[in-house]
Amino acid sequence: MAAAKPILVVGSAALDTLKTPMGNEDDALGGSSFYFSSAASLYAPVRIVAVVGDDFPMEKIEFLKDRGVDFSGLEIAKGETFRWGGRYYRDPNKRDTLFTRLGVFETFEPKIPPHFRDTPFVFLGNIHPSLQLKVLDQIKNPELVVLDTMNFWIQGTPKELDRAITRAHVLIVNDEEAVELTGKDSLINAAGALLERGPSTVVVKKGQHGAVLFRERGEVFFMPAFPLRVVKDATGAGDTFAGGFLGYLAAQPDLDDPMVWRRAVVHGSVVASYVVEDFSMRRTATLSEREIEVRVEKFREMTAF
Amino acid sequence: MAAAKPILVVGSAALDTLKTPMGNEDDALGGSSFYFSSAASLYAPVRIVAVVGDDFPMEKIEFLKDRGVDFSGLEIAKGETFRWGGRYYRDPNKRDTLFTRLGVFETFEPKIPPHFRDTPFVFLGNIHPSLQLKVLDQIKNPELVVLDTMNFWIQGTPKELDRAITRAHVLIVNDEEAVELTGKDSLINAAGALLERGPSTVVVKKGQHGAVLFRERGEVFFMPAFPLRVVKDATGAGDTFAGGFLGYLAAQPDLDDPMVWRRAVVHGSVVASYVVEDFSMRRTATLSEREIEVRVEKFREMTAF
Repeated sequence: MAAAKPILVVGSAALDTLKTPMGNEDDALGGSSFYFSSAASLYAPVRIVAVVGDDFPMEKIEFLKDRGVDFSGLEIAKGETFRWGGRYYRDPNKRDTLFTRLGVFETFEPKIPPHFRDTPFVFLGNIHPSLQLKVLDQIKNPELVVLDTMNFWIQGTPKELDRAITRAHVLIVNDEEAVELTGKDSLINAAGALLERGPSTVVVKKGQHGAVLFRERGEVFFMPAFPLRVVKDATGAGDTFAGGFLGYLAAQPDLDDPMVWRRAVVHGSVVASYVVEDFSMRRTATLSEREIEVRVEKFREMTAF
Repeated sequence: MAAAKPILVVGSAALDTLKTPMGNEDDALGGSSFYFSSAASLYAPVRIVAVVGDDFPMEKIEFLKDRGVDFSGLEIAKGETFRWGGRYYRDPNKRDTLFTRLGVFETFEPKIPPHFRDTPFVFLGNIHPSLQLKVLDQIKNPELVVLDTMNFWIQGTPKELDRAITRAHVLIVNDEEAVELTGKDSLINAAGALLERGPSTVVVKKGQHGAVLFRERGEVFFMPAFPLRVVKDATGAGDTFAGGFLGYLAAQPDLDDPMVWRRAVVHGSVVASYVVEDFSMRRTATLSEREIEVRVEKFREMTAF
């Protein structure tokens, strides 16, 4: 852990209101930057750039501070914190947005503090592609840039998104987004087209069907999803996956070893499998190295033949 | 191969008319018993019980006879062979039925010839559960009974289906059917409920997302689908999977080894990955042991970490 390199994450910071068959939560800690950090900080030092309103209950991020997450890039702006409300159903793949109040996030302009500008690992959470590009302009020669995005930007700002993708080393998308971004009808063809645009690695998330890692020279790695009996709150599973994935990579001495990338997908999947078992980041807040190892071994056992 | 035990398959025998983005076919060999046999006969001796009409072009099953498939249980009835017409789209999971003419299959009453009644391995293809039960009544102490079914019987004849499931050792269903059969919302809970009804093994097919093997004492094995650039004709993929799966098992000396069951799922997936690359059974008709091994190794490589 001492040797792990720092990771910069830029994304949303939110308070989520959740209605689920397993219970309800008001103003639970949410947003891509916090979900990502709660996972990545299990492996490596994390630096956050995000914005909250002056109503933000700072005690909610105490557990991240205890893990050494650097909040000197967290802007506290006058106004309301970004709030999102969602309803989940028994089918964990289905959800409805009940409300979205952007608050101070609406005018978020990520400013990277000078002491963050040489961070070697960068996670660009799902924000406007123009903002993702502005972040990259402020970073000096990052070793690895991981980009997340969503349908909204694929449809709304395809040109800006394409420029951001060109500058990323790793693109994380879900299967529908991969097809939508490329117009290809099979996952392998879509991933091939994305690899030609710049990234050397594409991770396609398939929700309850797992994830697939595509790398240059035709390398493919399949990862099932951990078989869960109960999914309590699927919010933030994608950002948690990204946090486990990049956190694991940041802690490795040699990224030239292809197996390291596969294990990063396994770790992302494991941490995500835990986070959905309870509301918000409650589970990643208490997650131990031992618990992670148990599910990594379980994954190995579940795929051996 | 010499030691492989014989397999009895009871199912449909059809001529398929296919409209696909990759081309059209008229009166192509189809039906669950033929698809199953074209895969299982790569591993073990196969005995077919099915019915065709007196219009059936016998030269279409010449390649199965050459592999030693025993057609002495193939009834040739006065009338028209079962014909099915389907349209496929670029999305291989989507298909429309254009027509169904049951012909002689409408009054099919499977009669197991006396010299087939001690067959150790039995595959009950997707036919009326009452017929599946009648077949079982005619077999002496089968070592392994594998049952396939579909939504149609889950909704239409749930009681008969439940009796058939109770008498099967292995149940093969797709993910929607598993949920529908049990009312459970997660795959692992659905599989658990099915294992309590009698079968000691449940295989859940997830189409382009692979397959999952569930066995007693909580054993789970995940298998991705082979990543194909082109799916020409998805007809019969499920029966082909079952044929590769049961064929592989029938060729093994020791079914107590849990790894044998996992490898059976791998072989089923491999043969199914080939069959969809061309129309009808054209690809399984020419498939070699070497080609199967290449994809088994590819699967191993794609899931290692």
